[in-house]
Amino acid sequence: MQSPPDRFQPIDSNNVPRYAGIATFMRLPSIALEQANDVELGLIGIPWDGGTTNRPGARHGPRQMRELSALMRRFHPVLEISPYSLANCADLGDTPVNPISVEDTLDLVEGFYRDAVDRNIVPLSAGGDHLISLPVLRALAKKHGPMGMVHFDAHTDTLDRYFGDFKYTHGTPFRRAIEEGLLDAKRVIQIGIRGGLYSAEDDAWGLEQGIRVIRIEEYFELGVNQVITEALSVVGEAPTYVSFDVDCLDPVYAPGTGTPEVGGINTFDAQVMLRGLRGLNLIGGDVVEVSPPFDPSGNTALVGATLMWEMLCIFAEAIANRR
Amino acid sequence: MQSPPDRFQPIDSNNVPRYAGIATFMRLPSIALEQANDVELGLIGIPWDGGTTNRPGARHGPRQMRELSALMRRFHPVLEISPYSLANCADLGDTPVNPISVEDTLDLVEGFYRDAVDRNIVPLSAGGDHLISLPVLRALAKKHGPMGMVHFDAHTDTLDRYFGDFKYTHGTPFRRAIEEGLLDAKRVIQIGIRGGLYSAEDDAWGLEQGIRVIRIEEYFELGVNQVITEALSVVGEAPTYVSFDVDCLDPVYAPGTGTPEVGGINTFDAQVMLRGLRGLNLIGGDVVEVSPPFDPSGNTALVGATLMWEMLCIFAEAIANRR
Amino acid sequence: MQSPPDRFQPIDSNNVPRYAGIATFMRLPSIALEQANDVELGLIGIPWDGGTTNRPGARHGPRQMRELSALMRRFHPVLEISPYSLANCADLGDTPVNPISVEDTLDLVEGFYRDAVDRNIVPLSAGGDHLISLPVLRALAKKHGPMGMVHFDAHTDTLDRYFGDFKYTHGTPFRRAIEEGLLDAKRVIQIGIRGGLYSAEDDAWGLEQGIRVIRIEEYFELGVNQVITEALSVVGEAPTYVSFDVDCLDPVYAPGTGTPEVGGINTFDAQVMLRGLRGLNLIGGDVVEVSPPFDPSGNTALVGATLMWEMLCIFAEAIANRR
Amino acid sequence: MQSPPDRFQPIDSNNVPRYAGIATFMRLPSIALEQANDVELGLIGIPWDGGTTNRPGARHGPRQMRELSALMRRFHPVLEISPYSLANCADLGDTPVNPISVEDTLDLVEGFYRDAVDRNIVPLSAGGDHLISLPVLRALAKKHGPMGMVHFDAHTDTLDRYFGDFKYTHGTPFRRAIEEGLLDAKRVIQIGIRGGLYSAEDDAWGLEQGIRVIRIEEYFELGVNQVITEALSVVGEAPTYVSFDVDCLDPVYAPGTGTPEVGGINTFDAQVMLRGLRGLNLIGGDVVEVSPPFDPSGNTALVGATLMWEMLCIFAEAIANRR
Amino acid sequence: MQSPPDRFQPIDSNNVPRYAGIATFMRLPSIALEQANDVELGLIGIPWDGGTTNRPGARHGPRQMRELSALMRRFHPVLEISPYSLANCADLGDTPVNPISVEDTLDLVEGFYRDAVDRNIVPLSAGGDHLISLPVLRALAKKHGPMGMVHFDAHTDTLDRYFGDFKYTHGTPFRRAIEEGLLDAKRVIQIGIRGGLYSAEDDAWGLEQGIRVIRIEEYFELGVNQVITEALSVVGEAPTYVSFDVDCLDPVYAPGTGTPEVGGINTFDAQVMLRGLRGLNLIGGDVVEVSPPFDPSGNTALVGATLMWEMLCIFAEAIANRR
Amino acid sequence: MQSPPDRFQPIDSNNVPRYAGIATFMRLPSIALEQANDVELGLIGIPWDGGTTNRPGARHGPRQMRELSALMRRFHPVLEISPYSLANCADLGDTPVNPISVEDTLDLVEGFYRDAVDRNIVPLSAGGDHLISLPVLRALAKKHGPMGMVHFDAHTDTLDRYFGDFKYTHGTPFRRAIEEGLLDAKRVIQIGIRGGLYSAEDDAWGLEQGIRVIRIEEYFELGVNQVITEALSVVGEAPTYVSFDVDCLDPVYAPGTGTPEVGGINTFDAQVMLRGLRGLNLIGGDVVEVSPPFDPSGNTALVGATLMWEMLCIFAEAIANRR
Repeated sequence: MQSPPDRFQPIDSNNVPRYAGIATFMRLPSIALEQANDVELGLIGIPWDGGTTNRPGARHGPRQMRELSALMRRFHPVLEISPYSLANCADLGDTPVNPISVEDTLDLVEGFYRDAVDRNIVPLSAGGDHLISLPVLRALAKKHGPMGMVHFDAHTDTLDRYFGDFKYTHGTPFRRAIEEGLLDAKRVIQIGIRGGLYSAEDDAWGLEQGIRVIRIEEYFELGVNQVITEALSVVGEAPTYVSFDVDCLDPVYAPGTGTPEVGGINTFDAQVMLRGLRGLNLIGGDVVEVSPPFDPSGNTALVGATLMWEMLCIFAEAIANRR
Repeated sequence: MQSPPDRFQPIDSNNVPRYAGIATFMRLPSIALEQANDVELGLIGIPWDGGTTNRPGARHGPRQMRELSALMRRFHPVLEISPYSLANCADLGDTPVNPISVEDTLDLVEGFYRDAVDRNIVPLSAGGDHLISLPVLRALAKKHGPMGMVHFDAHTDTLDRYFGDFKYTHGTPFRRAIEEGLLDAKRVIQIGIRGGLYSAEDDAWGLEQGIRVIRIEEYFELGVNQVITEALSVVGEAPTYVSFDVDCLDPVYAPGTGTPEVGGINTFDAQVMLRGLRGLNLIGGDVVEVSPPFDPSGNTALVGATLMWEMLCIFAEAIANRR
Repeated sequence: MQSPPDRFQPIDSNNVPRYAGIATFMRLPSIALEQANDVELGLIGIPWDGGTTNRPGARHGPRQMRELSALMRRFHPVLEISPYSLANCADLGDTPVNPISVEDTLDLVEGFYRDAVDRNIVPLSAGGDHLISLPVLRALAKKHGPMGMVHFDAHTDTLDRYFGDFKYTHGTPFRRAIEEGLLDAKRVIQIGIRGGLYSAEDDAWGLEQGIRVIRIEEYFELGVNQVITEALSVVGEAPTYVSFDVDCLDPVYAPGTGTPEVGGINTFDAQVMLRGLRGLNLIGGDVVEVSPPFDPSGNTALVGATLMWEMLCIFAEAIANRR
Repeated sequence: MQSPPDRFQPIDSNNVPRYAGIATFMRLPSIALEQANDVELGLIGIPWDGGTTNRPGARHGPRQMRELSALMRRFHPVLEISPYSLANCADLGDTPVNPISVEDTLDLVEGFYRDAVDRNIVPLSAGGDHLISLPVLRALAKKHGPMGMVHFDAHTDTLDRYFGDFKYTHGTPFRRAIEEGLLDAKRVIQIGIRGGLYSAEDDAWGLEQGIRVIRIEEYFELGVNQVITEALSVVGEAPTYVSFDVDCLDPVYAPGTGTPEVGGINTFDAQVMLRGLRGLNLIGGDVVEVSPPFDPSGNTALVGATLMWEMLCIFAEAIANRR
Repeated sequence: MQSPPDRFQPIDSNNVPRYAGIATFMRLPSIALEQANDVELGLIGIPWDGGTTNRPGARHGPRQMRELSALMRRFHPVLEISPYSLANCADLGDTPVNPISVEDTLDLVEGFYRDAVDRNIVPLSAGGDHLISLPVLRALAKKHGPMGMVHFDAHTDTLDRYFGDFKYTHGTPFRRAIEEGLLDAKRVIQIGIRGGLYSAEDDAWGLEQGIRVIRIEEYFELGVNQVITEALSVVGEAPTYVSFDVDCLDPVYAPGTGTPEVGGINTFDAQVMLRGLRGLNLIGGDVVEVSPPFDPSGNTALVGATLMWEMLCIFAEAIANRR
Repeated sequence: MQSPPDRFQPIDSNNVPRYAGIATFMRLPSIALEQANDVELGLIGIPWDGGTTNRPGARHGPRQMRELSALMRRFHPVLEISPYSLANCADLGDTPVNPISVEDTLDLVEGFYRDAVDRNIVPLSAGGDHLISLPVLRALAKKHGPMGMVHFDAHTDTLDRYFGDFKYTHGTPFRRAIEEGLLDAKRVIQIGIRGGLYSAEDDAWGLEQGIRVIRIEEYFELGVNQVITEALSVVGEAPTYVSFDVDCLDPVYAPGTGTPEVGGINTFDAQVMLRGLRGLNLIGGDVVEVSPPFDPSGNTALVGATLMWEMLCIFAEAIANRR
């Protein structure tokens, strides 16, 4: 294939320093969705934390991940991939959101992603809290039907209700997604689950649906390579989404998050696992719950941006493979 | 009068260091609302920021203001008041809130304050974003009818709608309060207003209702003493509420807030102005928009706690005067 | 057995958000020691750092650990324990302390713990610097005689004198405790020891007494499971105390501490080791040396609170087992 | 006149929250210089601190000022100006720079500004350290000849050499500019000068050239209004540049800077002074020395962005007046 | 007079950058006290906070003030003084201290200062908490008898006992000093006093002794020039000590301190007041209560170092005048 | 051998607390190079970051590493070495540098190190950015000829040009060193390499020269002991330099650095590897790229100081062995 044209290339860091310029994801060109005709892989921010039940701030995640993503370069020496030679990539900006309304925001985000999906764009999203995965999955399911998912998280996010009878929080998106037929529970794997529970039954519903849950104890026992094998086996060859909540990582790697749980995964292993998903039928992904006010240093956002870079590489390859 | 009993006295700092112990407001005893029969002045937290249109975090304000209020002592050397000898004071805890629903929270907070008002408690509240003043005023208006208000703020908070047609945000509480007849616009004074506007008409509605707006330029021209005189003249002798948004202060005094505006009031003058309200018919007040994630040092919360201490003294005196 | 009554249950996080309310340990009820008749497991703060020879601030530890402990939930999914169904737990507040006197504080703390021990309360303490373990052990030894101890630390804390002839610092508590017959040196194991020494002889005295010291090199060589086995073997079935100095952890997990030593233990392994102590005859424990001024983010306090949660679970089980 | 077209309007904050979206100056459209044919007022970043003799980091200034400028709105209620109705404004991005070469950067920046000047763009720049004013003045002097300057600073920046015989540092730009005939020393006023000197003669050269220096003592004695009168009198009606080094402000307002000097100007007075320059023949300006690494909170950048907003308003008016 | 020899000159900042090199006070040479025969003005650190009743950390003050003092230069343009041409100045290092013993430290510090006084060195000290002034005054009183004092502080520090019957804390030094005859109460002026009190009688004892107390309200009413006049009148021509507690300043200028009180003095006025003491018979001074852990930015230490620079200049002049 | 005299011993921490006193490396005496006749091991700061292409601040590294090195003690319990008994160690201060000129600084640093080498001093340097290794190697190569090097880093630092045709940056020092014959490429091993590349060819040149590159993936696969074996085998018995860029570590261990790369080495393994170099013919080393503005907590500097302590021990032993 031909290499993508210059208008889909990041700014050259050897001429313009990496700290300089208007911050877009990976220093890619900013292209409005309505003009994104040739974009194949779209990086999108969802600056919203209205589903957050404890510490807020994830609404500021996309902006800081954009800033820190300037530290990413162009060639992945382990995958031996130049993603910008494989697919037309661009920063599509942030979706519209409404910081004071859950319902309005779910609609606004879904609308944006429907447009993106209609243009055959593979979305790579920066949250926002984890509830933002729900409208993304709604849009993707229109095209792909019930999807598989590799889900990295400290929490299963399959609770039912909060604060009485409220259905939509960052603790419930995947229960809703399974109920709505967006995800095929038997093709979902959750990795890194840990932390105290509200009750012994918190995770029962998900297990009943057939989700494969790898709690942190099993994770360390299996080792990363075996976890990858298990993930590949669960999701199979059908369309698969990747969702990475940074609280899956130990808080030392991602202190800037709303619900930290001590005793988690390290970033190197997270990178190895994402690389291990290479070759799957990947149709989208997100990195969520980066909350800059709880880590003004930007270190959490650097981790988030690095995970986005890893996904970008395997998504670009998937796009090229599907051509 | 007799001094309030020991169960309404703060912990003695000369025996137990001020940094020690479970943090309550002013080191006062914690008393549940349903057992607060003798409480006259109730310090209450409203840990909620669901009306915030920009930077969140004010939901964490009450806890950090409790912590820093431990630095307050017992005797006010300028007012020459020992407030804890004048009124039965207690920390009534936080109201219930719902971080993912504006409507539910407005109801929950109003319900709590109705109970407090039924018990003849003068509420001194720690926000939370500025929308929390609305349900408090709703509860107080049941008893007092349309109230006057001394309102310290960088913003008039009298806008109409946000993000389309949404009526309840931290930019709209006092428009709603005037529309609902909770405040008597002609007895409302707003001090410290500044910052750019969305349009030239932003503040027109409030002025039309008769609010006395002292923009920062007039504030510095008049001087603090003249501003106090003006405030006393506007609110008169009828029941008056005091609302202090810490963004009224210059951001150097209160960086931990959601919508900072450069070029504001200093804390000494804020203290002088609050002391100047002594003798009014004060029936409640709040300190809002302290957002700890944007000032982890706690300095903004210290300012907030100090302003609460100033209000506590003049409120205790007002209670004693009414006896 | 019957479940403990409501008055020993934490606030329900599904109704009241976890960031809200007055901060007590684990959101448990605050009960004054003199009214703690039915309390079986008491969480107690010792806000004091007067034994600190280098960087101070541990006096602020209890308050910040209270705040961060709100992130703990109710059910431990690995131990499969609901601790609040096993034992009556409460926050007993902070002990009295004197920040300017070592001697006075040792007496004040011991007095408080004697009362607690007299009431058959198992104490779980939040320091404070490590010297606070000494008066706690003095009180416990009245009841239990010479105890065993599982001691997690970067330092043996068995030095003799500081700054001339001063016997009581946070580097000497366990030398004093052994000399005074509070600990049975042969039933003491120290895990994670590392860092440069003042001289080659620093740790000699403890080894001569029979303490089992697992330096960090041996720790990594043995692996966590073998370390647990060794600990169980050393302390046996007699009454055993658990003391966790957060500087045992690598400074990335606990930067907010007075004497950090690079190259330590991670939090997941610390959790696993604490869980491994399940079934011992546990009669008390502490988490010490959390110094908030050196980690304003609260991340160190979150780790400290999590370790307290782990101890709380195994202590509640021990209490139930002894019934 | 007709209002500028939509493509020169900032993003509407009432639809898209102010924290959202790719961060450009004032949320204005990003337009590349080579396509900036209709732009009249160009906001430009110069991300460079290679002239810094002490604490670096001003290279990161433009990016953080872009982020914080999102807090600015559209209407200036004191000047009663809607700047975006008066002139076509845009974010022209950052100039090319070379972080390891002073000489190369001086050329790169001058080249960029020559292009901007050729397009009749009034430049409003975000530094970078103060040396960046020199290449800007070089480009502007091609068009305007020797200019007047209102210079806010704690330092005169008219020293001669550093570290032996080095002529180009952030302590020398205005000596070079006067030597090169870019500035007319008799039309230069420096406001806020203070701090210790290397020797009694540090400021002598500038005074000999005829610069009007208002040291901080005279500044407080005259008062802001008299200082404005003096400034207007010094610069007169000929083309005038405005340079604002944030270290002119007291460090509490601008801690994030390389060479803070205690005892400076406050932000309200800085705003008043900038507004006082209204009506001058303003042909460009800059805000320099914002160093984010020394103020990760962003508060200094918020001040810098607010000062840019003040300049933007008076520059837009000057452009409209010249039409 | 001849200029002091090179060995008493600071490092030349124009050759060696100001951020470089081993940090001594003002970049002066480090000279051990026992070799300080020709030193006339000695800068001394007292790294101790054992008298602190609330937030600790002032023990780290001297080191950070040394670091930030590198920003000071050589010529004072307002006083028109080159202090290093007037007196032999040197950094004499830190006194010995004992962080776990009040009594031992009082002796150690007094011993060090007796040696310094014996060598006719005028001491300029960096605390440390305010109790460190007591042993300094004890040493100076041996030579000078009862001294006058200009005392800048938010608190009078003349309380009697703490925590029962403890006489030596940072809240009591000047009561002890007056009782011991070190200070002549009638020649003591306290400026900036404010904040709540433990009781109405807190400051009564000092007033009875004849101390002139200028509370913050009177301070703002009088204005700085009148305050200076009052100070000169109170202390007269006899030997006078200057003690500056940084909590005299508003917390925005000095957040890094143990007992901040909102609503204080600004740094410019503090500088003006210190300069106003020029010509007094100055025999020593200190800057205390800088607590770096509560302001990791170093801004408070920069203020502290600047105040030391102001004192250094007027002390050097006093030394020259006495020759 | 005889133990070094007292004038080469660190300050005794048991008498003078470790946080006290003027901060020198390891609390060693400060000795000027021209008087360093008996010094065998010299600790030297190079406060310069003029070769930095992205985030600056490493110029502040030496001062903060001096401060944190006070936490080091005197005896290494794993190596069982008292380094100060093996070699005469001293802090030789900082080299002269020129923050605005690459060329001038390269000359200034090389000149300083030539003097040190002429005095037979083994240099242990604290950077500064990684370009500072080049002038150090130039000075050492005069004596030792082409050296071997154990190089810990996330980057190979063997790129050719930056920003056009600029040869000297912190990304190029070892290409220059090999070209200039200072290093024997076949005796160079690089450990920990990772992160995205500008292009697939970035590391090709180094591999062609024969450098042994252990990328992070191989590093984790081999394990630390095998990596040590490999390192020993590559460098052999000839003179060997050790260069440790802290970005080799995972950013959680060293967030304060200019070019962090997620997924790196931990500090314990770094310590083990440095200890594994014991017995080599070590002739110098450095710890570079500690950038305090990006980690005001000092934690990165603590890691840097600890790594210097590890090197100091094996260097002192090498010096003793060579006697």
